Amino acid sequence: MAEQIVKVGLVGFGTVGTGVAKLITEKADSIAAKTGIRLELACVVDIDTTTDRPVKLPEGILTDDLNRLLGDETIQIGVEMVGGTDVAKQVQLKMLEAGKDVVTANKALLAEHGNELYRAAHKNNRCIAFEASCAGGIPIISAIRTGLTANNITAMYGIVNGTCNYILTNMTSKDEDFSEALAQAQEKGYAEADPTLDISGGDSAHKLAILASIAFGYEISLEDIFVEGIEGISKDDIRYGGEMGYCLKLLAIGQKDEQGKVSLRVHPSFIAKDSSLARVGGPFNAVSIFGSAVGQVMYYGRGAGMMPTASAVIADIIDVALGNSAATFRHLHLKPRSETEQLIENIDDCMSRFYIKVMAKDQPGVVACYGKVLGDNQISISGALQHEGTGPDNTVPVVITTHTTQQKNITAALNDLEKLDVFSGKPVCIRIVDIPEDKD
Amino acid sequence: MAEQIVKVGLVGFGTVGTGVAKLITEKADSIAAKTGIRLELACVVDIDTTTDRPVKLPEGILTDDLNRLLGDETIQIGVEMVGGTDVAKQVQLKMLEAGKDVVTANKALLAEHGNELYRAAHKNNRCIAFEASCAGGIPIISAIRTGLTANNITAMYGIVNGTCNYILTNMTSKDEDFSEALAQAQEKGYAEADPTLDISGGDSAHKLAILASIAFGYEISLEDIFVEGIEGISKDDIRYGGEMGYCLKLLAIGQKDEQGKVSLRVHPSFIAKDSSLARVGGPFNAVSIFGSAVGQVMYYGRGAGMMPTASAVIADIIDVALGNSAATFRHLHLKPRSETEQLIENIDDCMSRFYIKVMAKDQPGVVACYGKVLGDNQISISGALQHEGTGPDNTVPVVITTHTTQQKNITAALNDLEKLDVFSGKPVCIRIVDIPEDKD
Repeated sequence: MAEQIVKVGLVGFGTVGTGVAKLITEKADSIAAKTGIRLELACVVDIDTTTDRPVKLPEGILTDDLNRLLGDETIQIGVEMVGGTDVAKQVQLKMLEAGKDVVTANKALLAEHGNELYRAAHKNNRCIAFEASCAGGIPIISAIRTGLTANNITAMYGIVNGTCNYILTNMTSKDEDFSEALAQAQEKGYAEADPTLDISGGDSAHKLAILASIAFGYEISLEDIFVEGIEGISKDDIRYGGEMGYCLKLLAIGQKDEQGKVSLRVHPSFIAKDSSLARVGGPFNAVSIFGSAVGQVMYYGRGAGMMPTASAVIADIIDVALGNSAATFRHLHLKPRSETEQLIENIDDCMSRFYIKVMAKDQPGVVACYGKVLGDNQISISGALQHEGTGPDNTVPVVITTHTTQQKNITAALNDLEKLDVFSGKPVCIRIVDIPEDKD
Repeated sequence: MAEQIVKVGLVGFGTVGTGVAKLITEKADSIAAKTGIRLELACVVDIDTTTDRPVKLPEGILTDDLNRLLGDETIQIGVEMVGGTDVAKQVQLKMLEAGKDVVTANKALLAEHGNELYRAAHKNNRCIAFEASCAGGIPIISAIRTGLTANNITAMYGIVNGTCNYILTNMTSKDEDFSEALAQAQEKGYAEADPTLDISGGDSAHKLAILASIAFGYEISLEDIFVEGIEGISKDDIRYGGEMGYCLKLLAIGQKDEQGKVSLRVHPSFIAKDSSLARVGGPFNAVSIFGSAVGQVMYYGRGAGMMPTASAVIADIIDVALGNSAATFRHLHLKPRSETEQLIENIDDCMSRFYIKVMAKDQPGVVACYGKVLGDNQISISGALQHEGTGPDNTVPVVITTHTTQQKNITAALNDLEKLDVFSGKPVCIRIVDIPEDKD
């Protein structure tokens, strides 16, 4: 059968860009055999044209001139691997205007300017494929967009940041402090020298913005997402939570109720130790989705790294080349901001269970104080844990878990607790997320 | 944007057929909004046109005459939900000849006659979409065919039969006998009145044949697959294995080595308790796939049931309607039997670790006998377990686990052990499968 030759231009020759170039040059034959599409790398654009990369490019295709890609009418697909949001956005817009379909892994850009870029693509009758932007090797976007078409998606729970998951896994299993676990992650290459975007939850929020957009069909803005990072987590809280049957994960959560109201949040979450997501360790990612017809599905795999991400980029390139992406993208109609804004739940209204730890001074009446503050704020206690003996400063950690209550009640209670002098320091509060796992 | 109306004919109005009819009639609007395809159910064919089903069909579309579907040129897609391999095969062939694309969930038919049907589809320039045939709600086939295009798939490990997984989960967690757990599964609707196809491993083999075909690109025949069911599993062995760190699952395994040699087998498998698949409980399915670029990925969800399977059928119908399936199916070129036959590994050559239990009579010299038989057959012991005290018949269970060895060595050793009169009854042998989980 005749093969269709598809020329690809790549912008950004860093880690993932190199992986993409490697797969295109080394796997062209097997990809052609499987799909009928023979990929040809026509042009690689990067400001650095001299550093050696672990891939051999055909002579003369590496350039620092984006116009070579834009002006080459034989190039159908432009792969943006620049990263960041400024130059990358201009690159994508220019490629769309030049009539190229765009493939990208740039989650920050899509989370911040996706709506604008999608509109630009529609205007130019082109498509943007972005499977690689969320959870690298896991084909989660195609699963949502095509595999679950017949479903009303009601919730998603994702571990979508490998850095945080690696750190929390080590804090849990090796009893490491946050700073030790972070240093380990940096040494292993799982955390950047400046890890802020990861550990603050920002990167997870980028991915949630993209996933929630397509799952719920809303124009989501980053501001819609409540974000709390893992910087303040202590190994003690992980241990106490563990004693009560929970495992700590940084979750990206999207929930839609029957009225279309959407709750979007990224925060450290205690989940049941025997839930599927609790088992996702190290740098792995997983996303659990609930669909009206399919029930619970979960996808698990490497969320980052050169080759897993490049693998997703190639899948997108083929999808675009076959025309599948165009068909799917054409129908990416998101409910505009004007309508979605009022459908985003304020975090104060969010219903959840909570883990609260106070450091109590070793004196009579402490538990009564504790109980009164919670009771006064309509908070009902679900479980409690206090080990015998006192710790440093003559204080003892007293942990409780609550039944479901509104965030605003907890916020009020935490304020009240902090004012009481029978407790030392600020109370610790971590959300407990009961993932509605259907087992039979 | 203009909608494209796509007419669908459905053959087989049983459980899943009803689910498909339900989704098409009730979700047409939301599917059209997401995909631009408006599905219309033009015709439902079943020999039983009188029994009430929990879906309201448009007047006059239920018929017992297949020719109404075949002769209606406005029907583009024929959905075969008949089940079985005789009538269903004729239905598919006739639909292909009548110019319809075919969507099916019929794993038995595809496992037995898939190669013939695929050829018929290619000849008629039509496609067969069969996402729903394997692991119901999990979009595993699309993941293999499109998401992992850039990968050389080296192995897959699947829990693909919900009935067996439900039974084994209950035998493990509730300490139930096989027969109790089976009865429970039947009561809950997870096992058929005649459960043979499921518990024998036959159904898992059907799915493995399909998945291995597309993952490895070979024309696989059912005879290529070594199959052992779960009928002989006792709760004692599950418990002893558990004490040694293992969890028992019925796995469908496909492995391809660097020479293209393929090992295909379905059998009860002890896997490490902390592996991802060990956590898959109850009627759920999961498939773990290893790709050269992406590393390990796992897909988890409901493997059967009316709505999960119907959800996958709808995804296929949309994929066919958009033309995506045609593009993918056109390139389903499987290496023909003449070439694959010699690439299938004989089970005797299969390398594995093993769990072996003998019931030893309580007398001196037993362990020496045991050890000698294993040693004489080049089998090295990895672990051992013998509880103090004797059981019924004055015998005691002695369990060992082996290092990796060839199946033929084990077969010989089991023969030798059975002959020795220091042991009572037949030894129990269960394979230990070390899934190469990469954790960091």
